[in-house]
Amino acid sequence: MRNPLFDAIYFNNNGYTPIWLMRQAGRYLPEYRQLRAKAGSFLSLCKNVELATAVTLQPLQRFSLDAAIMFSDILVVPEAMGLELDFIANEGPVFKQRITNLNDVVKLDNSQIEVKLDYVFQLIKSCKQQLKPNIPLIGFSGSPFTLACYMLEGRSSKDYLEVKRWVYSNSMALEQLLLKLSDAIITYLKKQVDAGVDALMLFDSWGGVLTPSAYQEYSLKYINKIVSALKQYTLGKNLPLIVFTKGGSNWLQQIAQIQPDVIGLDWTIDIGVARKIITNKIALQGNLDPMILAVGDRASLKREAMQIIDNYKLANNGDISGLVFNLGHGININTKPDNVAYLVDFIHEYSKQ
Amino acid sequence: MRNPLFDAIYFNNNGYTPIWLMRQAGRYLPEYRQLRAKAGSFLSLCKNVELATAVTLQPLQRFSLDAAIMFSDILVVPEAMGLELDFIANEGPVFKQRITNLNDVVKLDNSQIEVKLDYVFQLIKSCKQQLKPNIPLIGFSGSPFTLACYMLEGRSSKDYLEVKRWVYSNSMALEQLLLKLSDAIITYLKKQVDAGVDALMLFDSWGGVLTPSAYQEYSLKYINKIVSALKQYTLGKNLPLIVFTKGGSNWLQQIAQIQPDVIGLDWTIDIGVARKIITNKIALQGNLDPMILAVGDRASLKREAMQIIDNYKLANNGDISGLVFNLGHGININTKPDNVAYLVDFIHEYSKQ
Repeated sequence: MRNPLFDAIYFNNNGYTPIWLMRQAGRYLPEYRQLRAKAGSFLSLCKNVELATAVTLQPLQRFSLDAAIMFSDILVVPEAMGLELDFIANEGPVFKQRITNLNDVVKLDNSQIEVKLDYVFQLIKSCKQQLKPNIPLIGFSGSPFTLACYMLEGRSSKDYLEVKRWVYSNSMALEQLLLKLSDAIITYLKKQVDAGVDALMLFDSWGGVLTPSAYQEYSLKYINKIVSALKQYTLGKNLPLIVFTKGGSNWLQQIAQIQPDVIGLDWTIDIGVARKIITNKIALQGNLDPMILAVGDRASLKREAMQIIDNYKLANNGDISGLVFNLGHGININTKPDNVAYLVDFIHEYSKQ
Repeated sequence: MRNPLFDAIYFNNNGYTPIWLMRQAGRYLPEYRQLRAKAGSFLSLCKNVELATAVTLQPLQRFSLDAAIMFSDILVVPEAMGLELDFIANEGPVFKQRITNLNDVVKLDNSQIEVKLDYVFQLIKSCKQQLKPNIPLIGFSGSPFTLACYMLEGRSSKDYLEVKRWVYSNSMALEQLLLKLSDAIITYLKKQVDAGVDALMLFDSWGGVLTPSAYQEYSLKYINKIVSALKQYTLGKNLPLIVFTKGGSNWLQQIAQIQPDVIGLDWTIDIGVARKIITNKIALQGNLDPMILAVGDRASLKREAMQIIDNYKLANNGDISGLVFNLGHGININTKPDNVAYLVDFIHEYSKQ
């Protein structure tokens, strides 16, 4: 079935820009916070198929979004490989033990991905049953490098000291870890496809902390491995693969070379400039500064949203095809739902002109 | 008097790449920690001319660095404008009260810059007396936007919620703040010139959190104002102005348009690529990942340092003029002094080849 998201991704100009928002199902919604309280921990919410389905659908009930994204967390993969996880208030996810040496890497078990992450596949099936048929469901995973960052640091990091220790003095072991993660992620994403997702996204939230050559070597190489495997697996289907490296605006040409269907952009690059840099037929997704939805006034929100559409169109010969409107990063917890409603409707209206 | 730093900046090829390191005087040196303990607070160390001079000179005594940078902090300017400062262990600088509205901006007093920051000018004089004549002394300030960030957030920030609130819903007041800061900074830097600095650097540590258009509007515009005023003030002298926006690799063409003498680069761009982008005669400073000095092995350090020189040279027709070797950000507290010694000597040796 045709849908606006796929039309945009495959450059069918239907005079309408689709929009979805990274982390659209989440803490900025009061109805989310209610279900979250019911579930207990964040992780039990992820693992509760019924509640996670409800959370996935919540933003679609409020807003005319053009896609759903399954409600989950990128860290469920390392958890399924044996690293126990805590979600600490005001700090986010923390591993009880971090990876400190090659032996820890060897001990990681990626044979249980299909079994331990079954709740994700059940969630996908459940969402697909409840979603309108023209609303595609996006599955996802963290990139190997981004997952490795969390596993090596144990938690969010300011200076990425441990990750860089491995990059700059333990690269053989790092490669083992990244290979193992790539295999796990490929298994995980294939099972998401089997369960019924319509598109897949790789979140490389931390690739941007690397030098250009280290990004190639330790992040993009493994993203490429995954993209290739999934392309092979979904051959003949239209199942778009979206790649997003936060802080990766410098490296768009390299990312384009691995030929994902869509490249996600953060807000530090003009989307028109990005369109000119990426000359092949790869759709662009982005790239409103998420803070506008949290602390901006209506005038700013409208101006910035217009600029993205205008600049894209100008760079794309007056044509909005190939543009998926989104934020440049996950939605902020302080986001006002009213702003989201306004934005979604505005994008639909404005792109028709 | 000619010196290697100036030769590089003014494109005189003397077959030698000068090196200095952002935050080269600081916490990674045991002799710094001794003086720091003597001084009491960080701020009293900044204000003690004798101790701050000693701290400025410490790295020059250990390493064959080609420039000194005065030991101070960018937040002394808002402090001199009336915002009281605390330096909290493991957190860094915090303002006792942050700027919350236009009235707070109006109350800021930039009439006392020359008087209240006299200790900085005394420090410059004292350093110049003790430095070898061929070692230039670099003075500096934070950029208006970066100082505004601290003043609006009150402290380091993860998501820059308050700054972005002003950008996206209070921009008139933000402009007032940035104008006032620009005036204060111009006064401050002119007095640094009078006191005897040989070069000046503007640290725009947080400009990279903005969108391209907001960067132009709220950061680069005011940096331009300062660069123009200082160029005018130092007309006929060779007093290089260095501009560094962390996270600004996307915007090098725009930064080049304001024509500083040197553009500082963080580690997320290949310096050869940057050289090709910046076609006019502006020197480049950078851009080793500072974490290599903290957690890298010798082989990585050598490889990454070589790559910077090689890539620059290749992009600059085989000529190393116009390159000032530095880090892509301030030195990390975990840096091993031995690594610094090795790097400095390696750059000098290798660039001669």
